[in-house]
Amino acid sequence: MIGIFDSGIGGLTVVKGVMDALPGYDIVYFGDTARTPYGTKSSRTVVEYALEDTEFLVKNGAKIIVMACNTASSVATEAVRAAFDVPVYEVITPAVDRCLEATKKGIIGVIGTRATINSGIYERKILEKKPDARVHCAPCPLLVPLVEEGWRNKPETRMIVKKYLHPLKVRQIDTLILGCTHYPVLKDVIARKIGKRVAIIDSSTATAESIRQFAADNPQLDASFSKTDTARFFVSDITPHFQETAKSIIGRNIVLEHSGPFDLK
Amino acid sequence: MIGIFDSGIGGLTVVKGVMDALPGYDIVYFGDTARTPYGTKSSRTVVEYALEDTEFLVKNGAKIIVMACNTASSVATEAVRAAFDVPVYEVITPAVDRCLEATKKGIIGVIGTRATINSGIYERKILEKKPDARVHCAPCPLLVPLVEEGWRNKPETRMIVKKYLHPLKVRQIDTLILGCTHYPVLKDVIARKIGKRVAIIDSSTATAESIRQFAADNPQLDASFSKTDTARFFVSDITPHFQETAKSIIGRNIVLEHSGPFDLK
Repeated sequence: MIGIFDSGIGGLTVVKGVMDALPGYDIVYFGDTARTPYGTKSSRTVVEYALEDTEFLVKNGAKIIVMACNTASSVATEAVRAAFDVPVYEVITPAVDRCLEATKKGIIGVIGTRATINSGIYERKILEKKPDARVHCAPCPLLVPLVEEGWRNKPETRMIVKKYLHPLKVRQIDTLILGCTHYPVLKDVIARKIGKRVAIIDSSTATAESIRQFAADNPQLDASFSKTDTARFFVSDITPHFQETAKSIIGRNIVLEHSGPFDLK
Repeated sequence: MIGIFDSGIGGLTVVKGVMDALPGYDIVYFGDTARTPYGTKSSRTVVEYALEDTEFLVKNGAKIIVMACNTASSVATEAVRAAFDVPVYEVITPAVDRCLEATKKGIIGVIGTRATINSGIYERKILEKKPDARVHCAPCPLLVPLVEEGWRNKPETRMIVKKYLHPLKVRQIDTLILGCTHYPVLKDVIARKIGKRVAIIDSSTATAESIRQFAADNPQLDASFSKTDTARFFVSDITPHFQETAKSIIGRNIVLEHSGPFDLK
């Protein structure tokens, strides 16, 4: 069972990527909709939440954990790896690797939540591997609520995307990392506003591809994954609106199940 | 001590109202910034959070509870009253009373979070007291993130406010209830977009006024309130951004204190 968690519904873009890359593999998803969003909160709080989310997935049979949330990946990867025995995947490294393959000029833009951008993790990871890169980051805190509202292509959304991307555009980036699992939903608007010469790196597909590779390289671990084409979607809070957003991201009807009182201590 | 809670920072508009109406009275505030917002979540989850928030305030000396959050007031008032012995104030009734004094035509608009509007509480309370009123409600889910971002008067904010108010404007409301404690921050933009003939009812000042009245009518309870001009502001998560927003709402520097691990069970 592949365990995937996110602060809410946005991580379903990663589930979609994993389903495409590894068809038939069983998945258990947890979306922390009762405490969403993570991207506006402190590292201390996000670490605590990520540990609880992982514990829930491990208790529900996960043999590998994918943190499908850039905020959690940015601040909680070490804590989660230290606390659990299963392999833990984050969404930052695959996006950085893909980005370094794509960039020609080495001028790279990164957009994400305030917590992700403040952590400085993308910049650090890019400069470790390519010290002469120039990295420009922009926090885009309103994009998550816009996606959650389903305002994919409204004039207001286009205006806000344009405003956020402006400082990256004037610095003539040639590659843009979508550093939040909600943003692939806005990929078309983002592509139009940043210009077609800029390569857009979507961490959800990059992560899915690197998990596929990891499974191929580790046949013993791969054998431990059940493959009955089953996916379960747990959330800590259910509303009709969450249900609707989930359906629109996955592209078909899925059943959200309540995780029960989230009191793991 | 007057205890006031909200899902986050927005409830500080009510604190400001109470400080103006009852100068010198001691206040303890709790903002649930680790789980903010409430307005997109289910009633079941909001009730659970409201009970925990109240317990925290009572443990910290509150002799009266003000639920400075329309979402909690809409769905959790009965549960909180049943569980605690102190008087519990919500922000809906004072706004409804003030609105019924103000309206001439009886055509009333209400804006709020999705949870508040879906609860139908404003409509019910208005029709109980004025059965011939016509009530038009509009959920405005993006206004809370816009306030939290400090985008008070940006063109995008004005466009979004205009779009949300349009259905109320065409129905020629003469009174508009700001059914969310964040919205007073956007009062100027809202007033401009809805038109100057519409009376705007701000639940934060209406609530503060009704608490002042309640204290005046109940001298024994009033005597139990300490009056050393002390205010403490607890939050379940602290970030520099929360700190900044809090300062801008209260209009002066205030110190946010961490509530500690929020595990009251």
